[in-house]
Amino acid sequence: MKTITILGATGSIGTSTLDLVEREPDRFAVLALTANCDVARLAAAAIRTNAKLAVVADESCLPELRAALAGTTIGCAGGRAAIIEAAAMGADITMGAIVGCTGLEPVMAAIAGGKTVILANKEPLVSAGEVVLAAAARSGATLLPADSEHNAIFQCFDAARPERVRRIILTCSGGPFREWSTEQMRSVTPEQAVAHPNWSMGAKISVDSATLFNKGLELIEAARLFPVPHDSIEIVIHPQSVIHSLVDYVDGSVLAQMGPPDMRVPIASCLAWPDRMATPMAPLDLVAIGRLDFTAPDPVRFPALRLTRDALNAGGARPAILNAANEIAVAAFLNREIGFLEIAAIVADTLEGYDPAAPATLEDVLVVDAEARTVARGYVGSRSGVARGANVKDISV
Amino acid sequence: MKTITILGATGSIGTSTLDLVEREPDRFAVLALTANCDVARLAAAAIRTNAKLAVVADESCLPELRAALAGTTIGCAGGRAAIIEAAAMGADITMGAIVGCTGLEPVMAAIAGGKTVILANKEPLVSAGEVVLAAAARSGATLLPADSEHNAIFQCFDAARPERVRRIILTCSGGPFREWSTEQMRSVTPEQAVAHPNWSMGAKISVDSATLFNKGLELIEAARLFPVPHDSIEIVIHPQSVIHSLVDYVDGSVLAQMGPPDMRVPIASCLAWPDRMATPMAPLDLVAIGRLDFTAPDPVRFPALRLTRDALNAGGARPAILNAANEIAVAAFLNREIGFLEIAAIVADTLEGYDPAAPATLEDVLVVDAEARTVARGYVGSRSGVARGANVKDISV
Repeated sequence: MKTITILGATGSIGTSTLDLVEREPDRFAVLALTANCDVARLAAAAIRTNAKLAVVADESCLPELRAALAGTTIGCAGGRAAIIEAAAMGADITMGAIVGCTGLEPVMAAIAGGKTVILANKEPLVSAGEVVLAAAARSGATLLPADSEHNAIFQCFDAARPERVRRIILTCSGGPFREWSTEQMRSVTPEQAVAHPNWSMGAKISVDSATLFNKGLELIEAARLFPVPHDSIEIVIHPQSVIHSLVDYVDGSVLAQMGPPDMRVPIASCLAWPDRMATPMAPLDLVAIGRLDFTAPDPVRFPALRLTRDALNAGGARPAILNAANEIAVAAFLNREIGFLEIAAIVADTLEGYDPAAPATLEDVLVVDAEARTVARGYVGSRSGVARGANVKDISV
Repeated sequence: MKTITILGATGSIGTSTLDLVEREPDRFAVLALTANCDVARLAAAAIRTNAKLAVVADESCLPELRAALAGTTIGCAGGRAAIIEAAAMGADITMGAIVGCTGLEPVMAAIAGGKTVILANKEPLVSAGEVVLAAAARSGATLLPADSEHNAIFQCFDAARPERVRRIILTCSGGPFREWSTEQMRSVTPEQAVAHPNWSMGAKISVDSATLFNKGLELIEAARLFPVPHDSIEIVIHPQSVIHSLVDYVDGSVLAQMGPPDMRVPIASCLAWPDRMATPMAPLDLVAIGRLDFTAPDPVRFPALRLTRDALNAGGARPAILNAANEIAVAAFLNREIGFLEIAAIVADTLEGYDPAAPATLEDVLVVDAEARTVARGYVGSRSGVARGANVKDISV
């Protein structure tokens, strides 16, 4: 019986995690569940799982949570500090599924406990990679990646013999504009960008999948998680998203993990690791799928690939800057302030215009993140005029 | 430093094994090399690797071997008993690559030593499966499969948790007649049958790949090697032969091993296991391959699939009978005594006409094998008339 805390229990990953945990009540006991302010969902989940504690980040929602849990033995709390305290309660497994840099401190608190921490958001590894890995090394915490690609690599990677790995091959659906020219992408609307061909996801990550910034961020994550040289991590376009990633060994064996496009598969793999647990998905039917395709990624049409690789190689604050600038640019695109191609342009602008020292602590990372957002917002302001103008000049990235 | 003995050192698998062993002289020391009668190749390999012993199965070749090794410190011997003695010398790793049932006794002698035995021929698991597995269980020997499909499964299979495996998926190229109708296959020539699309192999195994008896025999092997219910082993047609096989887990994760169509990849995996060793092949290039296809196998056009599954399920002597009858039928086909479709018909005839008790010992297996061959030869005699006649009647299998 393992205790589990879910940080971000009401979002997509949190809900999938609860679905799995609730299927095996003899295997998992819920310690704490946290949410931002979705009290109805949080309280219902806490009652169903008989959690010890439910926490809302937004303190103004605490009275509502208290009312919803009246008459139960479930504790409740509110505010940012309470979330971090919940993360520090020492669950055997902590699912870190709080979106954005808000999730960094709680995840760090869980890592300090030295148990198993499942990483389901990108920020801990992209923006705070070195800080997070150093903390895990100190506490002895086990980090498990829930992203489908990194979980695939994790399942195929011989952690005892990283020197026998020749390449990591990250697969990439290519997004909805895989075959579009730069010219065609110029007039992409938010509606077109959020329609991902294979996965049902939120707007931000759907846009990232369309620009390929999502894959670029995954490249950075993979470099953090797996001790191989950066240039031995490759990206291959695989439109069907059936193979989630591959590991190539020195003997010529290439191990791959495949599965249906349902996040419960990698989440279940993390929850049960090194064992396995059942999930309700139908078995993969290769005959029904029929065919898997592979093509080379195009860093000209998708400058995100080059920008992220450069940020990874340069290291220091650059991955955090790239991530923050991308978030601001995507929000501006979804808000119709800038065009689709300006997303990469604003990231490139920000990386060029802001060059702080490498962050050594979590606080440093949060400062870089905040400052990069301010800088990026400035570029959004200047680019948005361009985007609306009649003569859109070529993007220099 | 591990000692290695190669039983069948001058054939295709033996040569590939030597190629790998000679690349890492600090890792492997050759104990004994055996061959049937290819003295030139055997002696040269023994001298290159500074083997302790070279043995020819055909005693009449011993004087020639002795002459070839004159002036060296390499011992030499001849005859069947000498081969078995060499296998029993206690090498850390024994490669069992003697073709046919001749290889059974030497492999059993190696297994009795309780070290690592690499199985590169089908007979130990198909014809003598239960006997071989019981011997390995007694001695504590580790059996490693060198067949590309079984090696793929071995690399993906969590031996500590077989109950978490939902399916094993054996991939099958489909052979050169994958898309041919039964009517078209009726007039297939030996030359057409030995032209395998992906692998360069001997005539016998090429014909087996064309009838799909090869895949059927692999189904039986897989059932011996991996403790899962027989009906959870599936076959999928995958013409490119890039994915060598897959393992589907209860959580929906499907692990696959891919690689170039070169036997040195699975052999290297066995030699270095659980570590890895370098092989000289170019890395797998998914972009150059471009596409992987999957279709369902057709047990009507390829009755071998049904015959082998029935033999596996019935157990006892039936896999050994099937294997022996198939060898006789393939030889008769290559000798133009019977048509391509008669291969499966003769196997079916033999399984119907010969039903001995389940073999309990290696001697029993060898008796079944010999008797099944005699029975099959009888059917070849009666079928060969049919095959040559003007009105070829439908094959009942």
